[in-house]
Amino acid sequence: MAETPHFQRIALIGIGLIGSSIARAVKALGLADEIAVQTRREETLERARALDLGTSYHLSAEDAVEGADLVILCAPVGAYGAIAETISGALKPGAILTDVGSVKEYVVDVVAPHVPDGVHFIPGHPIAGTENSGPDAGFPELFVGRWCILTPVEGTEETAINKLGAFWSAMGSAVEVMECKHHDLVLAITSHLPHLIAYNIVGTADDLAGVTKSEVIKFSASGFRDFTRIAASDPVMWRDVFLTNREAVLEMLGRFSEDLSALQRMVRNGDGPGMQALFTRTRDIRRNIIEAGQDTPMPDFGRGAGASKDDDAE
Amino acid sequence: MAETPHFQRIALIGIGLIGSSIARAVKALGLADEIAVQTRREETLERARALDLGTSYHLSAEDAVEGADLVILCAPVGAYGAIAETISGALKPGAILTDVGSVKEYVVDVVAPHVPDGVHFIPGHPIAGTENSGPDAGFPELFVGRWCILTPVEGTEETAINKLGAFWSAMGSAVEVMECKHHDLVLAITSHLPHLIAYNIVGTADDLAGVTKSEVIKFSASGFRDFTRIAASDPVMWRDVFLTNREAVLEMLGRFSEDLSALQRMVRNGDGPGMQALFTRTRDIRRNIIEAGQDTPMPDFGRGAGASKDDDAE
Repeated sequence: MAETPHFQRIALIGIGLIGSSIARAVKALGLADEIAVQTRREETLERARALDLGTSYHLSAEDAVEGADLVILCAPVGAYGAIAETISGALKPGAILTDVGSVKEYVVDVVAPHVPDGVHFIPGHPIAGTENSGPDAGFPELFVGRWCILTPVEGTEETAINKLGAFWSAMGSAVEVMECKHHDLVLAITSHLPHLIAYNIVGTADDLAGVTKSEVIKFSASGFRDFTRIAASDPVMWRDVFLTNREAVLEMLGRFSEDLSALQRMVRNGDGPGMQALFTRTRDIRRNIIEAGQDTPMPDFGRGAGASKDDDAE
Repeated sequence: MAETPHFQRIALIGIGLIGSSIARAVKALGLADEIAVQTRREETLERARALDLGTSYHLSAEDAVEGADLVILCAPVGAYGAIAETISGALKPGAILTDVGSVKEYVVDVVAPHVPDGVHFIPGHPIAGTENSGPDAGFPELFVGRWCILTPVEGTEETAINKLGAFWSAMGSAVEVMECKHHDLVLAITSHLPHLIAYNIVGTADDLAGVTKSEVIKFSASGFRDFTRIAASDPVMWRDVFLTNREAVLEMLGRFSEDLSALQRMVRNGDGPGMQALFTRTRDIRRNIIEAGQDTPMPDFGRGAGASKDDDAE
C-alpha cells in the first residue's frame, strides 16, 4: 500500500489487549516518536509502565491527547461518549481520531458530536483479538494478516483516511473501507452472534442437572471446548457490543432461531437426508475460509494431541 | 493401568478417521499380529491398502471378523445393526466386540441382539477426533491424552473389560466406565448440542441477504471461523448421531433455547449487568477446562497470527 507513516505522538486511550498490541507494534516498527498511554485504573497504568509500553503514562485522557497527531480509543465502547466529551477541547487541530471498537454506528453517534472542526474522525475496527484481555495479553503481531475495517463518515479527507490505512498496513493488516451500518451487520453475523451463542451454550452447560460440571469439563474435547474459548472473551467489552449493536444482533439472532427450529424439527422427525444436506453444505464454508487464508487447515486448529499436556511435544 | 495387551487379529469394520487411527496406533505399538481392514467401498479399501493400514483387506465384514479376537465397529452408527446381523455367525467365541460410536444406548439396542453367547460385547467411545474424515485423516497419536468411555452391559466379564481398557490405555487414552444412558446425556451437552449449534449457525450465515458470503468468509476471524471447524465434521456420522440420540439432544436443545430466550431478552432490554454476570461466569469454565488438561491455554488455540498464511513462520 502506501509508504510507512510516521506520527509524532500517538495517544492510546485504554491499554488492554488491543491497545497494548498497538503499543508494541508501534514500538517495534518505529511508527511514532512518542506513545502516550492512558487508562483510568492506576493499577493497569502501573502494569503498562512495567511492561514499558509507552513513553508517557496518564490517568487523564486530556493530558494524553495533548499534542497527539493520532488518538486511538481502545477502551470499552460503552466509555467512548464520556471520553470524547473529555478530550474534545484538548485535541490538536489536524489530528486523526480513531478507535478499535467492534461496533461502528454507535461510535459515530456518540463520538462525532464531540469532534472539533479540523480533527479527522475515522472510526476503525481491527478484526483481531484473542480470548485474553489486559495489557499483558497483547503482542506486536496481533494484526498481521488480519483485516482492519475503517468506516469514515462522508466528507472525511482522503489524505487522513490514507494515512490511517497506511498505519494499519504497516502493522500487517489489510484495510477495507465500508459504511458503519454495513459493518455492524457483517460483524453481527461473523462475530457478535457467534459470541452470543457461545456464551449461551457454555451457560447452559454450567447449569445442568443430570450431568455434573466436572463431567462437562472432562469430556469437553468432544466439541464443547471450542465454544469455551470464545465464551472466555472480555465480559465488559462484549456486554458493550450487545448494548450498542442491539438491532443487528437481534436480527441475526432471529434468523438463527428460525433455522434452529427447522433443524430441531428435522431431529424430532428423524429427517436424515435433510440433516445430511445441511451438514454437507456447511463443510464447504470451512473450505472457503481456509482457501481465503482466514484459518489454518490443520486439524483441530493444529492443537497437539492431548491438548495442553503435550503442547511442548508438538 | 494394566500391562500392554496383545491380540492375534484385530478386525476394523470401517476405516475412516477413527478406524485408520486405530490401525496406525496398533501397528506403531505392536498391539496385534494381524489387522483385518474392512470397508464396503472398493475405492476406500484400495486407499487403505495403499496407506498400508492393515495386514488383510476385505469388502466382506464376515471375512474380516473370521478368527479375530478383537472386532471394532468403526463405521457410521446407522450401519451397526446390519453389520452386527452379518457378522453374528462369524464371530469367534471368546472374542471382544466393541465400537467407537458417539452414541451408546442405540448401539446396545441394535447390536446386542445379534451377539452370540461367549462373545464379549463392550460398547466404547473414544472422545477423540478432528474435523477431517476418511482413511487419510487418521494418525496414531489421535487418542493420546483423550478419554475413552466404555459402557458395558450388566454381567459383562471383568477380564474382558480390563483387556479392552488396557488396549485403549496402550494407545494413550484414559479409560472411564459408565452406563450407556448416562454417556448419551453427557455427550449430548458436551458434543452433540455444540455440533448441532455450529451446523446451524454456519447454515444461517450461508443464507443471508444483506451480507454476502464472501464477506462472511473474509471477516470470519472475528469468531465465526471457530464454528466452521466443527461444522466441517463428517456429515453422515453426525446425521446418525442426531438420528440415534434424539431424546437427549432434544432435551439439551430445549434447555439451550430457553436460556437463549432469556439472553435475547437481556439484549433487547439492554440489561448490561445481567449480560456481564453471564459472560464472567462462562470465563471460569474455560479456566477449568485448561486446568484439567483438556485444551491448550495458548490464545487462539495457538493458531499463528494471520492463520494459515503464516503457519510456517510460527
